[in-house]
Amino acid sequence: MGMEIERKFLVNGTDWKQEVSGLFYRQGYLSSQPDRTVRVRTVEDKGYLTIKGKTSGASRSEYEYVIPYEDAVAMLDQLCETPIIEKVRYRIPYEGLVWEIDEFQGENLGLIVAEVELTDEKQAIQLPPWVGKEVTTEAKYYNANLFKHPFSKWID
Amino acid sequence: MGMEIERKFLVNGTDWKQEVSGLFYRQGYLSSQPDRTVRVRTVEDKGYLTIKGKTSGASRSEYEYVIPYEDAVAMLDQLCETPIIEKVRYRIPYEGLVWEIDEFQGENLGLIVAEVELTDEKQAIQLPPWVGKEVTTEAKYYNANLFKHPFSKWID
Repeated sequence: MGMEIERKFLVNGTDWKQEVSGLFYRQGYLSSQPDRTVRVRTVEDKGYLTIKGKTSGASRSEYEYVIPYEDAVAMLDQLCETPIIEKVRYRIPYEGLVWEIDEFQGENLGLIVAEVELTDEKQAIQLPPWVGKEVTTEAKYYNANLFKHPFSKWID
Repeated sequence: MGMEIERKFLVNGTDWKQEVSGLFYRQGYLSSQPDRTVRVRTVEDKGYLTIKGKTSGASRSEYEYVIPYEDAVAMLDQLCETPIIEKVRYRIPYEGLVWEIDEFQGENLGLIVAEVELTDEKQAIQLPPWVGKEVTTEAKYYNANLFKHPFSKWID
């Protein structure tokens, strides 16, 4: 197990997209309770099962296991809570850190967020120019909430 | 993934216990919704994560993965819904099939059930002499319910 520390930001413009190619992610939840989420994910042709504990600040416990792709697809299509989240993820190195940008599809189309994983909650980071407002602690941006309350249906 | 087909019975007496030794199981749930249970289990010093779909008759879909023992213990102690189920499981071959007898501990002390896994729902089986009433379809005997409504608190 590990502790996951990450900060999340909105993304401005599309300049970041010039020279990177993304990977296609599908993910769904077997449990989306705040105390314990159980996520099934495919990344291109790989399958993963991930358990995360309750978020405390920017940290939460995380356990991730590789599973057969066929199992992941069957669970996404038959067992997970619906709808499934689909997104393209881009990885962009910037000043010694790797930023992950998620460009959502389907009911979350139009939402683009950037995450960066840290080793320490207080770690100083340099923000890339395309990074906008920080949303680390805003629950509506959690992936486990985005399928229940997709971006296209937000009022504000 | 596989389909799990099993029948469950109550157990009479203790004759079955004469010549077998059991293994110690601890298990808890990351999700105990009827549509999808996610179970963490340790068997002696091994760890497992198991996802099961909705029960339909005696069948349900099942996905099981071996995980590090330390992960399983940490999830049982910190993440799972409480209380954790503890039981000793015995395996007894009888007439070509293997019966699994669970002798529950803690709040389910006194409950002993026997399960047998089949390849076909209509498969004929020979019942061992210590097998009592069939409870295959009685939800209160599901392990996912026994920790919420333990045997010691049943009224009837």
